[in-house]
Amino acid sequence: MDRLTKQIDFIIEIDKLKHILRQSRVTDGSRRENDVEHSWHLAVMTMLLAEYASEPIDILRTVKMVLIHDIVEIDAGDTFIYSAAARDAVEEIERAAADRLFGMLPDDQASEFRALWDEFEARVTPEARFARALDRLQPIMLNYANQGGPWREHEVTAEHAMSFNMPILEQGAPKLAEFAEKLFLDAQEKGYFHDG
Amino acid sequence: MDRLTKQIDFIIEIDKLKHILRQSRVTDGSRRENDVEHSWHLAVMTMLLAEYASEPIDILRTVKMVLIHDIVEIDAGDTFIYSAAARDAVEEIERAAADRLFGMLPDDQASEFRALWDEFEARVTPEARFARALDRLQPIMLNYANQGGPWREHEVTAEHAMSFNMPILEQGAPKLAEFAEKLFLDAQEKGYFHDG
Repeated sequence: MDRLTKQIDFIIEIDKLKHILRQSRVTDGSRRENDVEHSWHLAVMTMLLAEYASEPIDILRTVKMVLIHDIVEIDAGDTFIYSAAARDAVEEIERAAADRLFGMLPDDQASEFRALWDEFEARVTPEARFARALDRLQPIMLNYANQGGPWREHEVTAEHAMSFNMPILEQGAPKLAEFAEKLFLDAQEKGYFHDG
Repeated sequence: MDRLTKQIDFIIEIDKLKHILRQSRVTDGSRRENDVEHSWHLAVMTMLLAEYASEPIDILRTVKMVLIHDIVEIDAGDTFIYSAAARDAVEEIERAAADRLFGMLPDDQASEFRALWDEFEARVTPEARFARALDRLQPIMLNYANQGGPWREHEVTAEHAMSFNMPILEQGAPKLAEFAEKLFLDAQEKGYFHDG
């Protein structure tokens, strides 16, 4: 099969990511957002907030990483991140999804996409740490904007949300962690969390 | 107002782009896609198809351009591109939208975003020409995937679609233009267009 055909088939296949719904809702709360909307938001956030990364980052690599980090969910679905059990169970499924989906591409691009996804999962490079910080910050901003809908729906307390998210935020982007902490405390005061 | 507050306010404001619906439908035809989904798709297409640009392109600048090229539609709405009258009427509104929206950002980032949008609109650089080619190719691929739904709905003939899109595609990415032409001819044979 020729190179362009493989690329086009992949581009059509990933259209399915528009159907994978997350728990977060868009800011006005009218509906849940999907993985594609989330990924676009992270990419623009990378353009704007890269200056707050804990170490200098390669912006292009980070943008690429956030654009494709959720593509495996076409096969694996979205996992509500506050559930540790659910997270473990999907790891194997996500690896198989990465094999299938990135394997549709010509070899050089399959390797590039897989390396970006592996880098995001491994959480070691400054780019991956920053990308993961944004991945946590974005739903916090959305949940705050719609008065904590998903937090209350899933009975997430302020303590749980903070202990779960703050380390990742502090590791990737300390100034954004400070901002998130203020948002958490304000959200708690306003009653946006489950009252544990 | 401090720098981070401006950036965060903009990030929240552009969440509204998730509500701006296009005429194109997602591949399975189940619903219209929105500007954010379209922009994400173009960004991943840039990652994969940059090798077909008619001249070498700066990938980061092109990805940034496609990520933000539709943000003005938060104020201006989506214009069905086959209508020339509608296109002219929105130009003024889009400039005002660019002033308002990019003007929310700190000066340096406001300038960067405005320059990217102006570059896309001016259609002169290799990056803008390639971005515009993808901007045309993506809905063609979606329309083909759902048997020409929007083409028939808006009474677009194959001749009209080809004369409207082929020059932009040829200018930005000749090999992708060849691919699109085959798609158009196949779509015409299959009856996906309005029968003019």
